[in-house]
Amino acid sequence: MTKTNEGRFFEDYAVGQVIRHAVPRTVSGGERALYHALYPARHALYSSDLFAQSCGLPSSPIDDLAAFHVVFGKTVPDVSLNAVANLGYAEGRWLAPVYAGDTLRSESEVIGLKQNSNGKTGVVWVRTRGLNQNDQLVMEYVRWVMVRKRDADAAAPETVVPELKSVLAVEDLAIPRGLDFTGYDFELAGEPHRWGDYAIGEKIDHVDGVTIEEAEHMMATRLWQNTAKVHFDATFRPDGQRLIYGGHVISMARALSFNGLANAQMIVGLNGGAHANPCFSGTTVRAWSEVLDKAETSVPGVGAVRLRLVATSASGSMDLKGEDGKYLPHVLLDLDYWALMPV
Amino acid sequence: MTKTNEGRFFEDYAVGQVIRHAVPRTVSGGERALYHALYPARHALYSSDLFAQSCGLPSSPIDDLAAFHVVFGKTVPDVSLNAVANLGYAEGRWLAPVYAGDTLRSESEVIGLKQNSNGKTGVVWVRTRGLNQNDQLVMEYVRWVMVRKRDADAAAPETVVPELKSVLAVEDLAIPRGLDFTGYDFELAGEPHRWGDYAIGEKIDHVDGVTIEEAEHMMATRLWQNTAKVHFDATFRPDGQRLIYGGHVISMARALSFNGLANAQMIVGLNGGAHANPCFSGTTVRAWSEVLDKAETSVPGVGAVRLRLVATSASGSMDLKGEDGKYLPHVLLDLDYWALMPV
Amino acid sequence: MTKTNEGRFFEDYAVGQVIRHAVPRTVSGGERALYHALYPARHALYSSDLFAQSCGLPSSPIDDLAAFHVVFGKTVPDVSLNAVANLGYAEGRWLAPVYAGDTLRSESEVIGLKQNSNGKTGVVWVRTRGLNQNDQLVMEYVRWVMVRKRDADAAAPETVVPELKSVLAVEDLAIPRGLDFTGYDFELAGEPHRWGDYAIGEKIDHVDGVTIEEAEHMMATRLWQNTAKVHFDATFRPDGQRLIYGGHVISMARALSFNGLANAQMIVGLNGGAHANPCFSGTTVRAWSEVLDKAETSVPGVGAVRLRLVATSASGSMDLKGEDGKYLPHVLLDLDYWALMPV
Repeated sequence: MTKTNEGRFFEDYAVGQVIRHAVPRTVSGGERALYHALYPARHALYSSDLFAQSCGLPSSPIDDLAAFHVVFGKTVPDVSLNAVANLGYAEGRWLAPVYAGDTLRSESEVIGLKQNSNGKTGVVWVRTRGLNQNDQLVMEYVRWVMVRKRDADAAAPETVVPELKSVLAVEDLAIPRGLDFTGYDFELAGEPHRWGDYAIGEKIDHVDGVTIEEAEHMMATRLWQNTAKVHFDATFRPDGQRLIYGGHVISMARALSFNGLANAQMIVGLNGGAHANPCFSGTTVRAWSEVLDKAETSVPGVGAVRLRLVATSASGSMDLKGEDGKYLPHVLLDLDYWALMPV
Repeated sequence: MTKTNEGRFFEDYAVGQVIRHAVPRTVSGGERALYHALYPARHALYSSDLFAQSCGLPSSPIDDLAAFHVVFGKTVPDVSLNAVANLGYAEGRWLAPVYAGDTLRSESEVIGLKQNSNGKTGVVWVRTRGLNQNDQLVMEYVRWVMVRKRDADAAAPETVVPELKSVLAVEDLAIPRGLDFTGYDFELAGEPHRWGDYAIGEKIDHVDGVTIEEAEHMMATRLWQNTAKVHFDATFRPDGQRLIYGGHVISMARALSFNGLANAQMIVGLNGGAHANPCFSGTTVRAWSEVLDKAETSVPGVGAVRLRLVATSASGSMDLKGEDGKYLPHVLLDLDYWALMPV
Repeated sequence: MTKTNEGRFFEDYAVGQVIRHAVPRTVSGGERALYHALYPARHALYSSDLFAQSCGLPSSPIDDLAAFHVVFGKTVPDVSLNAVANLGYAEGRWLAPVYAGDTLRSESEVIGLKQNSNGKTGVVWVRTRGLNQNDQLVMEYVRWVMVRKRDADAAAPETVVPELKSVLAVEDLAIPRGLDFTGYDFELAGEPHRWGDYAIGEKIDHVDGVTIEEAEHMMATRLWQNTAKVHFDATFRPDGQRLIYGGHVISMARALSFNGLANAQMIVGLNGGAHANPCFSGTTVRAWSEVLDKAETSVPGVGAVRLRLVATSASGSMDLKGEDGKYLPHVLLDLDYWALMPV
């Protein structure tokens, strides 16, 4: 029997099963510096210990999406090595900031299974949890992927499709203990726009663009210990291109959104997301956002905004889908998340 | 009104105005490791805690130019987003070493304004100061840039051209408290040449060359949170090239100068500098230096050398300018700085 | 006389000579994060402080090969700047783990000299030692290189060819103080295969491949302060290619070997190694291993495996040499090392 990991196939999952993912990770200032070298990340809370302390936190955490990538990367060998497609995200919640020195591990519970009618693939839903060295939950999210069957003749499991919230309610969001925006320094943060200045339906073109290089997306993806072959091996695809990890596009778009959303400091909820089209080296990634909703929170001074974050490979157009209801070819990412802002 | 930063235009500056720049930054061992991965930096004081301690410092600081880049990067959205040209530097002084754990912020005072005769642009002089978490000055420098006017019909401001020293006197230089080269280990530092071994007028060809890649200069420039579009967006220029941040060339040339100037440990003064020609990916950067001056300092064992550092895209020639007085096409950088050496 | 380092020539070495190499280095979480961004490194002991502590260590060390690269890099200006060829390694031993905060320096003792019959070159054997801030040995190895003579007419030195072990005995290996695999968590480590599951002669295809980029190998090589021109300067070779540092291929192959050897946690001995063919940007590196030997150690629960690690530029073939006894063109590396595994 081979000793290498061939990944799990559709038959290997059962509802209720909990998979402890391998290779826990201690993060340091190194991960943080690399994140800021790989993305134009500038949200002040994640850049300055003093700024974070002025907001009630003990020090500057690593970027929320870096924490997501660390948790996500560990799941790849167990969840998506034989995946045909990454279908969606839901109910993502950041539950505690991650600081330099923290050690993260991940586990996933299988919460849904549905064999496709072709008999060759099936959909697997997992709820993934990231935990720190104190077994404290730092984040959780649901992801579903289409996975190949090892044996097309294997019996189909009972279909279980989990009920998932299409949007998290503001009450579902965890606000970090101690967070306090009453002394928030808008000048140091980079923009004067507060929660009250954003209107539902407002769209913001983030203006800037970044042309992506192979070395960068591979370094990022490796740093999160994501092992999917397609990101690293130029011989894997017939066209010789390396598919860029979708999370790289998420982080790039989020960092670009600083320009217009500098005060949407903390990401606390992920309602959903689609990697609308694949992204390859040489693409110039741009981003725009739409304010989908706003809500007050239980913490004085802290407001929540629900944002659509769209990454594109072209400037100008804010169109998302064509007449056929499919994403237009220049749309790379359509993400729906909640962030915290000073009111 | 758009929420994105369109930058300041010439009319937005007034002499005496102080701009507090956004996004303070806490640096760590991560920034340091990245600096050493991006440049062939080997000055021992910035590589080893023990070496730094043997020179009287508490630990190894981050490279002086890394501190400069952090301070400089913050000024870009406020000073040079609409700049047509970066015209010069003067009176740069490093006032305190920056250590892992320090948090830096920047502010700039407008010290000069002069509208150009074409009425479309003007020159802005700013004195930028970098401060740490204790509000201690870590460095300051004057920079002047040519900036577009928003409205060509706007009235010209009163012309104020600051008087700037063409060269800092040795008395102007700040020598870090406690610095002591009396136990300096030349073998561990990499070369036997001491202050007394260098002669005014001496030129040193640093021999080595580094061919620059897009991924590297973008990672460096992002790490300093420098947001100028031209460095990242391949669609910005008609020729599809990304202009390399001038500071990347400065750091590359300084690192290359180790070979021949290994004991020019600390940069303490920046007299001036010109980015003579733009630099693009694929260029093999080389460097040579000329000893412009030497001076004793008030600290026993510590000498100062004034050096010209020239980066080029060709080997061999030490010519700087043509008969027309303009820089030759292979000259990328002409920098004039003071460094400290063991006598 | 030029102030730049022209390197040592064959005549400059004498048996018994000890060279203290320049530029000591303090490592931090930054070096660690970069190592994990540059290679798909996932051995749990080097990723998680908690995992390392569960194995009896105070925290997670930096990867053994990162420690090797730091020690090795310092020797380049003194040993291999004028080397024509890197001929071999032997008797490599890791003697103490390296942790963030440690400061490393290197020294080499010349232990052999043999002028070649052409009179133009000679072979130099050195035993290199890496020491930390407490003057504790962290590793040592023997390397021999072919070096040019400055003057072909210089007299040949007395020939001294050191006796070197072709393979270290298990008694020669240093097992880190406190190492304890009795509570080893195979699930978190990523694979169930223990020492007892591997058979002598067994070969493992590590399946994955990574296509190498210029920016990555240059960043890695610079981080180790390895200054050999051929790795950085595209104008150095007539074909315009930059030769990739052999250590980059070693680290890449070792990281790829996680898939099948996730529990071969610690590298403790280097028996030998050959850089069989040069590697250039664009190559997709793959790896396979062969179990050459197994041994019990003096520490309960800890077994030693002797592994051949082969890096190739092609998938599928496990052939090493042709009928002429020479390495086949697709073989990049043939390394022979000892690692520690849970029994």
